[in-house]
Amino acid sequence: MNVTTDWSLAPAADIARAVSAGAVGARDVVAAALERIDRIDPALNSFTDRLAERATARAVSLDAGRARGDPLGPLAGVPFAVKNLFDVAGLSTRAGSRINRERAPAIRDATLIRRLEAAGAVLVGTLGMGEYAYDFTGENIHDGNTRNPHALGHMSGGSSGGSGAAVAAGLVPLALASDTNGSIRVPSAFCGCFGLKPTYGRLSRSGTFPFVGSLDHLGPMARSPRDLALAYDAMQGADPEDPSLASRPPEPATPDLERGVADLRIAVAGGYFAQGGDPEAFAAVEHVARALGARRSISIPEAGRARAAAYLITAAEGAALHLDRLRRRAGDFDPAVRDRLIAGAMLPAPFVERAQRFRRWYRDAVLALFREVDVILAPSTPCRAPRSGQTTFVLDGVELPVRPNIGVFTQPVSFIGLPVVAVPVWLDGGLPLGVQVIAAPWNEALCLRVARQLEREGAVRAPVAAVDEA
Amino acid sequence: MNVTTDWSLAPAADIARAVSAGAVGARDVVAAALERIDRIDPALNSFTDRLAERATARAVSLDAGRARGDPLGPLAGVPFAVKNLFDVAGLSTRAGSRINRERAPAIRDATLIRRLEAAGAVLVGTLGMGEYAYDFTGENIHDGNTRNPHALGHMSGGSSGGSGAAVAAGLVPLALASDTNGSIRVPSAFCGCFGLKPTYGRLSRSGTFPFVGSLDHLGPMARSPRDLALAYDAMQGADPEDPSLASRPPEPATPDLERGVADLRIAVAGGYFAQGGDPEAFAAVEHVARALGARRSISIPEAGRARAAAYLITAAEGAALHLDRLRRRAGDFDPAVRDRLIAGAMLPAPFVERAQRFRRWYRDAVLALFREVDVILAPSTPCRAPRSGQTTFVLDGVELPVRPNIGVFTQPVSFIGLPVVAVPVWLDGGLPLGVQVIAAPWNEALCLRVARQLEREGAVRAPVAAVDEA
Repeated sequence: MNVTTDWSLAPAADIARAVSAGAVGARDVVAAALERIDRIDPALNSFTDRLAERATARAVSLDAGRARGDPLGPLAGVPFAVKNLFDVAGLSTRAGSRINRERAPAIRDATLIRRLEAAGAVLVGTLGMGEYAYDFTGENIHDGNTRNPHALGHMSGGSSGGSGAAVAAGLVPLALASDTNGSIRVPSAFCGCFGLKPTYGRLSRSGTFPFVGSLDHLGPMARSPRDLALAYDAMQGADPEDPSLASRPPEPATPDLERGVADLRIAVAGGYFAQGGDPEAFAAVEHVARALGARRSISIPEAGRARAAAYLITAAEGAALHLDRLRRRAGDFDPAVRDRLIAGAMLPAPFVERAQRFRRWYRDAVLALFREVDVILAPSTPCRAPRSGQTTFVLDGVELPVRPNIGVFTQPVSFIGLPVVAVPVWLDGGLPLGVQVIAAPWNEALCLRVARQLEREGAVRAPVAAVDEA
Repeated sequence: MNVTTDWSLAPAADIARAVSAGAVGARDVVAAALERIDRIDPALNSFTDRLAERATARAVSLDAGRARGDPLGPLAGVPFAVKNLFDVAGLSTRAGSRINRERAPAIRDATLIRRLEAAGAVLVGTLGMGEYAYDFTGENIHDGNTRNPHALGHMSGGSSGGSGAAVAAGLVPLALASDTNGSIRVPSAFCGCFGLKPTYGRLSRSGTFPFVGSLDHLGPMARSPRDLALAYDAMQGADPEDPSLASRPPEPATPDLERGVADLRIAVAGGYFAQGGDPEAFAAVEHVARALGARRSISIPEAGRARAAAYLITAAEGAALHLDRLRRRAGDFDPAVRDRLIAGAMLPAPFVERAQRFRRWYRDAVLALFREVDVILAPSTPCRAPRSGQTTFVLDGVELPVRPNIGVFTQPVSFIGLPVVAVPVWLDGGLPLGVQVIAAPWNEALCLRVARQLEREGAVRAPVAAVDEA
């Protein structure tokens, strides 16, 4: 850090330290972020709302607090943005849709926004997403596609494409997103940043637009494991407004972040997770395993069936959520989303019931594996980011539709709510790949320790993209 | 009690006291029960297996224990029988079906049987039921109908028709049964005995054949609240083999049974529960309310919708359970059951998902009522036992099919797992009616206290039927 630091590109941890120390004003940091967003986002289309006035007022207030000697929080002055399914006071929570824009403006911020701001962070805007989060591409017929900052002709990944692109392009050091079947991990892989999908039930979902109640998770995306951990620690804790929240005390991840991984039993997922993808996807896992000295392999039983079951439950629960809208406003949906929801509306209930029954078996089977290992590694996606608009790809010699198949490796993991940190791997001069660092429920801290170890060794990194400005 | 007591007709509490005191041998009690079953059951068709050898051996062993000075349990020497969906070592668990008779014999008894026997009770047989418990009539195409002991041409009620008939006819003082949508409460009403449907998650279901996982309850039927309480107390407690069991300590009901009801706020359910039935159904509730001095009325919101939702969930989950059998063995089902399961197999998943969502709302709404009242009274059935084979009835001027409509008042209560004691009411010389005594979750003891108070006042009773022997 020195006086020539470009604060708009600094990690959240550095910004908070500098703002708390008075080395820079929150207002300057926020102004730099807003300027960079205005300059670069037109090429990316990652933001759906810029909140310059609100953010500036908040930064001014932080600086005034510091001048009065108020202690600032661990995210003091850190600009962040949120996927537009988070309630933001005064905005309609659109969840990537056209229909939701008619909703009354939210009367207050989602719980997780309030928690980040209580820790000193500054909300600067909302981010684009696939309609109603039923998406792996980052494409959106209403708002236009969010582009991959490392290659504008490629997908950002979805459904949290705006979050991935904004973080990877250095527009914000931190973004919030949601992950139902892979929506944090896929854009983290395609855009080359870090993403944390916490354990199901860990973080409050109060004040966010849902997709699939039994699968929805919220979490942060950032360019370093430390920034993920800072945000995660600031967001934990009970919330009477979210009855689905597990009643567990906060378990901060930052204290152990530098502890290394010597005590951890780390294995690579074999079988299902070692086929059906491009060779580079598995090379990325191999690269991470080598860096960690992990030589063990483990087989997750019936992962393919788990993916199918996650699919059924998603389609049916998603259709149940949107049934009235599908009946009254079918023409206002993104067709790529609508047609899958309509199909979901006609799924026979016993299929879904059987999927739920299998889910309990699968959860027990996978939890048993965590008696043998602490961490499991698997690819985030079966390939690098496809080209925008690409509708099919060839995986392991089989031509498949792109949209439903990007999540083959993420779905079996979120299906039972396991915590995951997605780490970005750069194998060559091409686009990044992602690796899932998976742990047993409530062991987010282990995933973050592993990610930090990999970062320290240089095995993974999240460089700011040099965007060709439009 | 004196030497001329007909032990085959005595209450469980009296039998246990006498056997423990050595006033009578368990062997004599069991022999009397077996003799009575052999003599009377041909007219009723309530038993599907008589376990004379096993029961006699067990009784002999109890008597030997007493001779050695072993303490006998609170159900010492009490004969009981179980609905044939309970595993009994050496028998195929048929669950009222033809198909299940091909199953391998159970290798050990269901948990609840083991608990009753640990308390000294003696299993004497298994009891008939509607196929796969999808029934309110007590009719069964494979085993023949179980007849109402108070009027052989009438339905015993289902699906636990064998349990209701055997208890009401004095073949056993105690029977175990299951209740998914009313299968304990309906035969209790039609046969004029007491039945306890405990809180969902209270009693272990391990070793029983399921129907609808989220609705299935097990419980006792008897001719007095005290006998219900004795059996209930003996069956409570943790069971690692049933993961759906709530983790609560046992909460015995016997200690407070005689406490009376002066401290309880008791209300009659109005609205939905005060229409759509024969006038006598509501007169029975009025009779009970008067005996308790309950003048308050309370409205359970959206009870009709709750019944519809319970229906959807039952059909879909039941179909999921039986899907393979429906595909391979459709001709071996009772048509009355099969056709509803096939319809359930085609229900769209979002309908069921919405039913589940409504269920959470409804549960919260009903639990809120229990801040105002302790006990709610409602009819068990909309009418007295119809004639065997009757397919339609007229309720409140509307002609309806019998089978699906007997449970109109039970379904909205079990839907959210509330504890209920069904009490038998004799308004006149005709067949009995039933009233549900409903409390908040885990308050079985309140329901039993109310039932006991009603019995003490003579407002309810369960006389042994004088069966016209065949």
